[in-house]
Amino acid sequence: MKQWNIVITGFGRVGWHVAELIGKRRERYLQRYQADVRIVGVCGSKKGLYHQAGLPGEQLAALTAASGGLQASPEASEAHTGTAFLQGSGADVVIEAGPTDFVTGGPAYEYITTALRCSMHVISISKGALVFDYPGLKRLAEEHQVMLKISGATAAALPTIDLAEYNLAGCEVSRFVGIFTGTTNFILSKMYQDNVPFEEAVAEAKRRGIAEPDPRFDLEGWDTACKLVILANALFDAGLRLEQIEREGITGITVEQMLQWREQNLVPKLTGEICRTAHGICASVKPRLYPAEHSFAQVNGATKAVMVETDVMGELLVIGGKSDPRAAAAAACKDLEHILMMHKTP
Amino acid sequence: MKQWNIVITGFGRVGWHVAELIGKRRERYLQRYQADVRIVGVCGSKKGLYHQAGLPGEQLAALTAASGGLQASPEASEAHTGTAFLQGSGADVVIEAGPTDFVTGGPAYEYITTALRCSMHVISISKGALVFDYPGLKRLAEEHQVMLKISGATAAALPTIDLAEYNLAGCEVSRFVGIFTGTTNFILSKMYQDNVPFEEAVAEAKRRGIAEPDPRFDLEGWDTACKLVILANALFDAGLRLEQIEREGITGITVEQMLQWREQNLVPKLTGEICRTAHGICASVKPRLYPAEHSFAQVNGATKAVMVETDVMGELLVIGGKSDPRAAAAAACKDLEHILMMHKTP
Repeated sequence: MKQWNIVITGFGRVGWHVAELIGKRRERYLQRYQADVRIVGVCGSKKGLYHQAGLPGEQLAALTAASGGLQASPEASEAHTGTAFLQGSGADVVIEAGPTDFVTGGPAYEYITTALRCSMHVISISKGALVFDYPGLKRLAEEHQVMLKISGATAAALPTIDLAEYNLAGCEVSRFVGIFTGTTNFILSKMYQDNVPFEEAVAEAKRRGIAEPDPRFDLEGWDTACKLVILANALFDAGLRLEQIEREGITGITVEQMLQWREQNLVPKLTGEICRTAHGICASVKPRLYPAEHSFAQVNGATKAVMVETDVMGELLVIGGKSDPRAAAAAACKDLEHILMMHKTP
Repeated sequence: MKQWNIVITGFGRVGWHVAELIGKRRERYLQRYQADVRIVGVCGSKKGLYHQAGLPGEQLAALTAASGGLQASPEASEAHTGTAFLQGSGADVVIEAGPTDFVTGGPAYEYITTALRCSMHVISISKGALVFDYPGLKRLAEEHQVMLKISGATAAALPTIDLAEYNLAGCEVSRFVGIFTGTTNFILSKMYQDNVPFEEAVAEAKRRGIAEPDPRFDLEGWDTACKLVILANALFDAGLRLEQIEREGITGITVEQMLQWREQNLVPKLTGEICRTAHGICASVKPRLYPAEHSFAQVNGATKAVMVETDVMGELLVIGGKSDPRAAAAAACKDLEHILMMHKTP
């Protein structure tokens, strides 16, 4: 029976749900993987909590947004955050769930590189550091013989990385295309189905909590482009940078244009596509038009989807996977199980 | 660098393609898993070929149906088939691709139990032995600390086992339902779309090589029921036997019935469904009616699909995956990679 120490860096809603799910699944980990999984530390940007023998579940459960989270916790200390803390934490696995900064990688990048250099496995839910330098982080993980898992950053509950690396292991993937952002799909579906202008569809998405208060990151295609650059580098070794991805958002789409498309029986979807061509790997994000009977045309609302073309197994299309913070946390917990599976002692 | 010796028991079209794909992927296995994978033996019911250092690729490639296969091969010997041969073969992995006998398990059951008792990993493409006693075989694999992989027997290129165990690891699955047989889906689609009688649709499926010359195994729902009982036992520990599965085929469906359903905007699909209920696990196979806008209603031709409902990650729907012998072989090779992944030495 091996003890697995977990530290969660970045402890917002998603991080909180990671702790909740790991707590609930404690017995499962013991039985399936002979793994005694304990959350020894959680930290935000200014303060953290740490207990070498594992933080009590009730203490973690109390750290809700309603109660002011980590900042308001009387036990939280400034000594329990930052990379020096992480180095000394004795973590086996670090789950990074902090805010995304895809220009510099931000604190997430510092946490991930520190963890990998200390031979800790890393599960990244936040995209920033992976967008900034996935190839470098992957190399670092390989040098230190640990795993770098990224389901939470690449469409979460919708399997993308898994699909190509596990379900289609051995196949050559020639094309990988998806509706990777629920917000933009909701907005386009709403405009198409209810014949409303862009601004009204955006307002509705905000009201429902699907779109962020400032939704430009999604609407301008950045969110899809971020996922795409990570996927292109992870699956195709493409060595691409974010700025090399051809990117067009959905902000310019008008009611008139929608009407015209509907008359032509075409449905617009914001998709990200990676193709293997004679000239190397191409990746682009833009609104693409699909005939009404195409599978993608029927993926509506905030639902996501991915389609993979292979040499031997044909095409696979996957639709669905919840998009809420708990589902994102569940994707990270899935990654944790993959790590436990790979390290199971017979 | 570990040498991995493979023996393929049952060497028809699927087995031949397994050998072909393993040969093509030799470099990949070396690079990704530091695994030197060699096919040391292949055997049919009467004769086999064996070479401790690995059979030459050209010799395997020559064993085509056109050239009479294994039976006509001058090097093939009666000493190189049967369970005694398997025991002495030094195999690390046995890939079973022989004919299916779901009443007694047949020779496949003998091969699989022998292999597991010798602590060889097993990949089963044939369903018979798994239908006959998956729980017993799984126990045997656990006792001997080896893996029993069954993608090839459970819809092959369409991920089913993987989906629940890997992509949704940690989630509780409440419902697992699929169009698991391409033949019946082709026939129902043809009847629905072209308004032709059952017999004509069956004849067309035979002409295209989609249906077997004697297609009753598919048409009466046995094929779906076999996959379902394996899945119910593997994923839900259901302890079900084939005869406990409620089963209804598609043989009684008439043109008149189809017309009526079309008027009601309902589409019939032969689906297998496993549900977790208050009274335990229920599994049934029957033609079910879906509204035209339902995702299953839009899965046509010989295409397969599976839908999984979970507690935390919502629903996932997967559509596609080729159904030919090479794709079935690729599913077994995927299983082989999973074994190599799990045993990769850093």
